[in-house]
Amino acid sequence: MNTFGRNFRCTTFGESHGKAVGVVVDGCPPGINLTEADIQPYLDRRRPGKSPLASARQEADRVEILSGTFEGRTTGAPIALIARNRDVRSEDYDALRDIFRPGHADYTWQAKYGLRDHRGGGRSSGRETLARVAAGAVAVRCLAPHGIAIRGRVVSVHGATEPGAMEAEIRAARDAGDSVGGIVEVTATGCPPGLGDPVFGKLDAAIAGAMMGIGAVKGVEIGEGFAAAGLFGSEMNDSIGKAGFTTNHAGGVLGGISTGQDIVVRLAVKPTPSIRRVQRTIDLAGAERGISVEGRHDPCIAPRVVPVAECMLALVILDAMLEQAKYRGFGGE
Amino acid sequence: MNTFGRNFRCTTFGESHGKAVGVVVDGCPPGINLTEADIQPYLDRRRPGKSPLASARQEADRVEILSGTFEGRTTGAPIALIARNRDVRSEDYDALRDIFRPGHADYTWQAKYGLRDHRGGGRSSGRETLARVAAGAVAVRCLAPHGIAIRGRVVSVHGATEPGAMEAEIRAARDAGDSVGGIVEVTATGCPPGLGDPVFGKLDAAIAGAMMGIGAVKGVEIGEGFAAAGLFGSEMNDSIGKAGFTTNHAGGVLGGISTGQDIVVRLAVKPTPSIRRVQRTIDLAGAERGISVEGRHDPCIAPRVVPVAECMLALVILDAMLEQAKYRGFGGE
Amino acid sequence: MNTFGRNFRCTTFGESHGKAVGVVVDGCPPGINLTEADIQPYLDRRRPGKSPLASARQEADRVEILSGTFEGRTTGAPIALIARNRDVRSEDYDALRDIFRPGHADYTWQAKYGLRDHRGGGRSSGRETLARVAAGAVAVRCLAPHGIAIRGRVVSVHGATEPGAMEAEIRAARDAGDSVGGIVEVTATGCPPGLGDPVFGKLDAAIAGAMMGIGAVKGVEIGEGFAAAGLFGSEMNDSIGKAGFTTNHAGGVLGGISTGQDIVVRLAVKPTPSIRRVQRTIDLAGAERGISVEGRHDPCIAPRVVPVAECMLALVILDAMLEQAKYRGFGGE
Amino acid sequence: MNTFGRNFRCTTFGESHGKAVGVVVDGCPPGINLTEADIQPYLDRRRPGKSPLASARQEADRVEILSGTFEGRTTGAPIALIARNRDVRSEDYDALRDIFRPGHADYTWQAKYGLRDHRGGGRSSGRETLARVAAGAVAVRCLAPHGIAIRGRVVSVHGATEPGAMEAEIRAARDAGDSVGGIVEVTATGCPPGLGDPVFGKLDAAIAGAMMGIGAVKGVEIGEGFAAAGLFGSEMNDSIGKAGFTTNHAGGVLGGISTGQDIVVRLAVKPTPSIRRVQRTIDLAGAERGISVEGRHDPCIAPRVVPVAECMLALVILDAMLEQAKYRGFGGE
Repeated sequence: MNTFGRNFRCTTFGESHGKAVGVVVDGCPPGINLTEADIQPYLDRRRPGKSPLASARQEADRVEILSGTFEGRTTGAPIALIARNRDVRSEDYDALRDIFRPGHADYTWQAKYGLRDHRGGGRSSGRETLARVAAGAVAVRCLAPHGIAIRGRVVSVHGATEPGAMEAEIRAARDAGDSVGGIVEVTATGCPPGLGDPVFGKLDAAIAGAMMGIGAVKGVEIGEGFAAAGLFGSEMNDSIGKAGFTTNHAGGVLGGISTGQDIVVRLAVKPTPSIRRVQRTIDLAGAERGISVEGRHDPCIAPRVVPVAECMLALVILDAMLEQAKYRGFGGE
Repeated sequence: MNTFGRNFRCTTFGESHGKAVGVVVDGCPPGINLTEADIQPYLDRRRPGKSPLASARQEADRVEILSGTFEGRTTGAPIALIARNRDVRSEDYDALRDIFRPGHADYTWQAKYGLRDHRGGGRSSGRETLARVAAGAVAVRCLAPHGIAIRGRVVSVHGATEPGAMEAEIRAARDAGDSVGGIVEVTATGCPPGLGDPVFGKLDAAIAGAMMGIGAVKGVEIGEGFAAAGLFGSEMNDSIGKAGFTTNHAGGVLGGISTGQDIVVRLAVKPTPSIRRVQRTIDLAGAERGISVEGRHDPCIAPRVVPVAECMLALVILDAMLEQAKYRGFGGE
Repeated sequence: MNTFGRNFRCTTFGESHGKAVGVVVDGCPPGINLTEADIQPYLDRRRPGKSPLASARQEADRVEILSGTFEGRTTGAPIALIARNRDVRSEDYDALRDIFRPGHADYTWQAKYGLRDHRGGGRSSGRETLARVAAGAVAVRCLAPHGIAIRGRVVSVHGATEPGAMEAEIRAARDAGDSVGGIVEVTATGCPPGLGDPVFGKLDAAIAGAMMGIGAVKGVEIGEGFAAAGLFGSEMNDSIGKAGFTTNHAGGVLGGISTGQDIVVRLAVKPTPSIRRVQRTIDLAGAERGISVEGRHDPCIAPRVVPVAECMLALVILDAMLEQAKYRGFGGE
Repeated sequence: MNTFGRNFRCTTFGESHGKAVGVVVDGCPPGINLTEADIQPYLDRRRPGKSPLASARQEADRVEILSGTFEGRTTGAPIALIARNRDVRSEDYDALRDIFRPGHADYTWQAKYGLRDHRGGGRSSGRETLARVAAGAVAVRCLAPHGIAIRGRVVSVHGATEPGAMEAEIRAARDAGDSVGGIVEVTATGCPPGLGDPVFGKLDAAIAGAMMGIGAVKGVEIGEGFAAAGLFGSEMNDSIGKAGFTTNHAGGVLGGISTGQDIVVRLAVKPTPSIRRVQRTIDLAGAERGISVEGRHDPCIAPRVVPVAECMLALVILDAMLEQAKYRGFGGE
């Protein structure tokens, strides 16, 4: 299932070391101004190789709109976006052809399909998120006239919560040939109340599915999240006054439907599984092996998860906006 | 969207104080032995009124199979299951007709639809989960011959982790006219490797969406979950030996696909929003009001989330089993 | 797949001789006035036993709304509709338990599922259309305020096109222990231009799928239909003037999108497969057998297809209306 | 809705005069041998400019596989296929920017979206079928090892049924600046019994929807089709003997499920709407205009519908095969 969304449907394709990665966006409203210049900045934010602490892979990642716009505006037809892969050093991965990297999808993919494109993780590579970010940038463009904006940030790395301390944690892990996890928070502002579709299309359920579907994410929470388990009802409930809700412990969602307050989501990002430190694993033949994953890898993937999480949240919210618009557009009696 | 699942599709219906709640299960494999006796025990586990600490609402909740079986076996046709509502004291709710209970879906539902069945929360009531549990019981029945079993339990209440202490927390909250949250853990054993469908149908993404879609759930994590954010890669990665994975920090899912190990999920359950303590809110006209929610309410909803979470996990796993079976059944070249 | 529609989703259930047939309608706009009295007349039109020429099965077919309305209006929650089966003479069918009736789904159902509810055709019975008609009546109710109306009629029976001649054909077939086919035409008036969704959700494609999905239908055509194969382009094309299209050879759909003219659909209905005349067939063991299908059967099913076809057209059009409303409700820039 | 299929999901994109047309195939079984050489012949068959009677547009239409295969085999990942547009003479269409061609989607598209890419019909162009054919070629490749083959042909043109007479009809129409319709028949051989999914996923319903979704198709029939309306039941029903069905009036489908016999489908193709003869129409401002559509157009589109119809039938059948494989793969008790 490589399609996301019911109304604004994004179908991604492409492998880390194939010819291209891309996405077809189906269901985009017509008449939206859209050119490559609206999308490229999101790809640039997501791109590796921008920091000494991040992966050194250098790719231009130039997005090309193949269809769905005419004279700079969307037409209602599907929008195909692709970025050709360029910096493909597949030979770096030859040693990994027959071995399962711990913490990666190598073992499970092999179990599922019986074969796999091992080069850079193939389809399970983080590079696939380029396509999500491209689609998300289109969603962001559609949401902007409605006053909806989305911002994410890293709020902790290996327990540290201050920027300098977080950077130090990453540096220390890298120097030790290891990696560290972190927590990302994403907030959407400007959402109207009423988004989300009970009972299985709840806004928070859609958000949780979208976020957990990002590689390396092992937990999702909304509003107070896991802290809610330690609260009294009188602490958790958000009172309502004439001016609206007085607090936002709920994180902008009640009963699966947006309240109109900020939607606040946090993701637990596991440490990058590719580490230089030797780990125990097996190969395709079942023989036990030691493995040290060399190559260009971010010691902490949390910063690069930020734009992806923002874009997934944009996709979920736009999808809910379109769903809700259906009934407004239809009218009642 | 009242349908869950792609292959084993469950469409629920019914309001807390309407005529009935029920579910239509579409896509159940034919030839499975199934009678009401397979489903009723799950409804009994979920039912309120079984403990002095739980809601006093007494309902027989007798499930009736309306279609889809013949001579005690499933036929491949849709299975309709209903339970009539009996203990309907709608007049208890008359006072709530025009007022938004804090922490409930009253406000958001009104904002979305412009009208709502206020009686007992209507469609947003926890009573809807009866239908999920009925469908989940069918899923459990289908999974059993494959050696897959699912068990859940409450692992903490308001910070307490021992049974006696948890019960004391609930009792104290009830006596204070308040409520408390908790954490539920659900584990699936016996799953084969290969379940889950990249990239947007990942097993963990489906689980997260399913769990966050349960009312009162504010967080979902798998394996190490949020703790992973504080680990090194060398701690988080599960090594593989000849006998398989040596640890299960991943919680049974790598790259969105099952590893064959136990699938371990934890949910953060917020405190029951209905409390006797007075809260501030507004009514339909926008006037500020105080509200004390009387009536029959569990001071901690976590215990009753357990069977619901089990059933949702069963539904996700069965759906993935059927998806995976498709390719096994088709065969290759 | 027992669900029809993307926006107005109808999931039907029930067998001919089971406990009940019914439908869950998910996605109905809120605030529509709806009671059983809006639905019952459609069930009455569809019901057998109203004419000496039709099946003698007598059923009250009382529809009951189980959920989704409150104080006489739809709430946006799923609407469950059921009708209990009453006149169940299953023993009439005992002789058919192990034999495949020619022209029926008996053989193919057995091949697909390995077992089947043989009583009255089980799930493949025309009785399932009761559920479609119930859902269609809700759709008709939703379309009415938009000025959209749908009417069907039998336009030929066994080649005859005049009412008296058609009736004579049916009578003659019945007396001969045989049956005859016919053609049904359904027309929707008042549809706005713009309905239908390229390229795989075209209005005419959806109509064709909906109509061919009615049992006994072997052909579907729109506008000139098969006659178009014998025309020149200059005859087929509809000119456009200041007042709109001057002709309607297209049948109200161009490029898969409604033109605003009447939508005109014709269906070829095969002769009722159940006939008294002896036919050759085999039983479950593969032995050759002769079969004479006794019992209550319409010698021409076309008249009873009319309300079903009307209702399917209503479902398709409402679904397209909701899809189109999505973009109108979302607005542009 | 630019996605076709539930299990083998094809999402097409691209406009007649945009950068490229293409398709993403999601759900292809892994391990199938597949290279461009398997697909290109289908594109070549569909390509215009091969006959003096057909459109003179010359395009290489080279297909490129962008993803989803590794070392010549499918991996289970989405297969993106594109063909760049080359022979783009957009200026030919400048005169059509503000005018609605009779019989085309110009008027309805404008009504739906409020804007349109007028160049060559944009998204509503027959060029979109290139993408369907590419996807269909992959489906054909998947079906081949199962012994399933699909063949289509033109069976009549403007009433003529002999090859020479058909060609004469086309020639005469072309010389008159006009066009003619025809009938296409497509047959699938080798299908197992049991394909198709009651009640809304019937094989014939899926076929009808797929075929009516091809531009210019105004009617679809299966087996006896419209002729069934003139038959007795004793003529229409296919008897069954020890060796199987003795006739195939049903066209290979009973009760929506395949019988194992040939599946026989016929399509009514309307005359090409683009004709040189002057027609009456209006422009965007509503002023009445005469229009003579110059340029490269097939005077009869039926021959070019043949490979498209074959490919759509392949897609429907493969989708049903995968659906059926699900239950076989899952196993019973």
